[in-house]
Amino acid sequence: MTDLDIYARQGLGQKSGIGQRVALVLVDFLNGFNDPAHFGGGNIQDAIDATARLLPIARARKWPVAHTRVVYAEDGSDAGAFTAKAPGLRTLTENSPLSQFVDAVKPVAGELIIRKRQASAFFGTEFTGWLTWHHVDTLLVTGATTSGCVRATVVDSVSNNLRTVVLTDCVGDRALGPHEANLFDMGQKYADLMTSDEVVAATAA
Amino acid sequence: MTDLDIYARQGLGQKSGIGQRVALVLVDFLNGFNDPAHFGGGNIQDAIDATARLLPIARARKWPVAHTRVVYAEDGSDAGAFTAKAPGLRTLTENSPLSQFVDAVKPVAGELIIRKRQASAFFGTEFTGWLTWHHVDTLLVTGATTSGCVRATVVDSVSNNLRTVVLTDCVGDRALGPHEANLFDMGQKYADLMTSDEVVAATAA
Amino acid sequence: MTDLDIYARQGLGQKSGIGQRVALVLVDFLNGFNDPAHFGGGNIQDAIDATARLLPIARARKWPVAHTRVVYAEDGSDAGAFTAKAPGLRTLTENSPLSQFVDAVKPVAGELIIRKRQASAFFGTEFTGWLTWHHVDTLLVTGATTSGCVRATVVDSVSNNLRTVVLTDCVGDRALGPHEANLFDMGQKYADLMTSDEVVAATAA
Amino acid sequence: MTDLDIYARQGLGQKSGIGQRVALVLVDFLNGFNDPAHFGGGNIQDAIDATARLLPIARARKWPVAHTRVVYAEDGSDAGAFTAKAPGLRTLTENSPLSQFVDAVKPVAGELIIRKRQASAFFGTEFTGWLTWHHVDTLLVTGATTSGCVRATVVDSVSNNLRTVVLTDCVGDRALGPHEANLFDMGQKYADLMTSDEVVAATAA
Repeated sequence: MTDLDIYARQGLGQKSGIGQRVALVLVDFLNGFNDPAHFGGGNIQDAIDATARLLPIARARKWPVAHTRVVYAEDGSDAGAFTAKAPGLRTLTENSPLSQFVDAVKPVAGELIIRKRQASAFFGTEFTGWLTWHHVDTLLVTGATTSGCVRATVVDSVSNNLRTVVLTDCVGDRALGPHEANLFDMGQKYADLMTSDEVVAATAA
Repeated sequence: MTDLDIYARQGLGQKSGIGQRVALVLVDFLNGFNDPAHFGGGNIQDAIDATARLLPIARARKWPVAHTRVVYAEDGSDAGAFTAKAPGLRTLTENSPLSQFVDAVKPVAGELIIRKRQASAFFGTEFTGWLTWHHVDTLLVTGATTSGCVRATVVDSVSNNLRTVVLTDCVGDRALGPHEANLFDMGQKYADLMTSDEVVAATAA
Repeated sequence: MTDLDIYARQGLGQKSGIGQRVALVLVDFLNGFNDPAHFGGGNIQDAIDATARLLPIARARKWPVAHTRVVYAEDGSDAGAFTAKAPGLRTLTENSPLSQFVDAVKPVAGELIIRKRQASAFFGTEFTGWLTWHHVDTLLVTGATTSGCVRATVVDSVSNNLRTVVLTDCVGDRALGPHEANLFDMGQKYADLMTSDEVVAATAA
Repeated sequence: MTDLDIYARQGLGQKSGIGQRVALVLVDFLNGFNDPAHFGGGNIQDAIDATARLLPIARARKWPVAHTRVVYAEDGSDAGAFTAKAPGLRTLTENSPLSQFVDAVKPVAGELIIRKRQASAFFGTEFTGWLTWHHVDTLLVTGATTSGCVRATVVDSVSNNLRTVVLTDCVGDRALGPHEANLFDMGQKYADLMTSDEVVAATAA
């Protein structure tokens, strides 16, 4: 019996679907997560390219769009347990090139910028309130890394009762093993897995 | 270059260590997560056995101990996105045998029982306040499943700035592939991986 | 210059209004909060009576309805800073008559029951997720006490970006000074103040 | 029977006390909250003066110190229900003079700066994690306004199981009626009321 058989027998892996109002979040598409010398590598550039193709469609359709950045204080006053595990995070400060958005998918005026210090876009932020204000019931998730900040964001999204979709071509990771393993987990328990083309088709006016 | 090489080169996988005051959490050691016909199987019984050996030591040392249960309302009033993905969760109601603690690791008076509906022991609960009240700075995590509620609890734990340890012999999953993949992710980014014997030795008075 | 003049000059006290979808919450209409020997007294019975008249209308209109209870563990495992300030809270246990809903406004099947230990209906609960699931953008608040759990719930409601309305005849307090003072604060900064009749008229189909 | 009699008869108004490790928070001591033309006035300057006398003692004793600012985006992307009630909040942007700390109590390197958009220092922030990291069990609260951001912070503080003290001479409000009414509520239910001199004496090494 394969892993998939076990999950199927237990009734996991159902679809939660797309609701009445979607929003798009881009998780940590920052220079530091697109540079293999820092936290990048693997298929992250591919994810950025696919998201860059999606973003004009999202804007044309007036989807609410949010972008996350990791921002730590220069003086170390907000370092903690996460930076103990991954000390490189502390280089992601307000004005560091590493914590700036990559050129291909920069925010425009009116889009929400979420500063965060932890993996999830929801943790210690006001992301849920913004989604409520925009009547969002479905969150489309793109970004890096699949096994890190994307996964954490997806778990909080479904926990907040948002129907959640991982755009499989728009998420990437420094290493492909964790990328695939986390897509499996998310698809079975937390989110629907769809390509950006499938999402665009499924949400057409 | 292996996945591990990539992570090592980026400085991930450091130790966050054990602080001044530990607490032990048992995540969802419920009948329904120990029965292969529901959400169980794999190495979950082994994890229960190892935790049953640890628990008397924890109690003798006066560690604060918390146990989580999944409890949904009989009338479906609190179903949502997570139960859409995994409909079997809705059978875990207050009085269902499936949502009762397994005999081997039942709570005793004075231990916290956390009712939850989402994956993480922290989500929509008062777990952080209880940890604060007990001056805890380090959370020792056991339970099921490694790739589900354990992982979600661990991510929230480190996000709350708790030093976090996954007790590798005390966590289990219905399928071993996700079990191993999630131990890798957690060890690299969120928690230290230690056996229960190692933790007992490292915290000896 | 009166207090009201100061607030008006600073632009406070604007209306946030009623949005597209309302929900009704009844905060702590429990026996223990309607008995002057425990936490009751003042105009709480009046608030229960007014809410009892509103509830059939809410149900007929299919508004989502939620009820909060305060529930502490019998063994004291979840007591903390709040119970240090107000020790009587610890008598509100699962099966105590004090923590049961008053007869006049009991929940019916399909309505959410929120167990809480702190003042706010949102704190350590999954209230926001339930509101999201029901597409709610406006929270109508009733309950007891105005200066306690109602006020705390209202502050969290507006902080979650819900348009918030305090139903002035449906909230009550053990003492009228704090009742009035908190209506003033909430009306100026967090919520619109309306009678239940006004809300019924403003939301008519 | 006075309001105070009613509260006393119901056992409210007990002391929660000071624990093992205190932190100091300064809530919104910003130019905009010290200018009567914006959100200031009343006794806020007095509160700043008293806090300016306390701060060197806090630093000498190595208490963790946190400062909150209200910061909204220039483009309105994060406006919502709270700014609907109080539109003037939207002028508190990253570089506006109104959202800068008053000179008398500016942060120094190593002190936490919390950006927030809602009343409470805890809402949508990582304040709890920082307190956990510093082993804090008691929060000393100063700032403005007593009836607004101070009260909201205090309610979240006790809800997080922190022993909470309002420093009565270090909190201020634009209007004295709400200042007094909120001191009463907080002292009865959420926090101990002490002067800064009393706190300094009670925490002496």
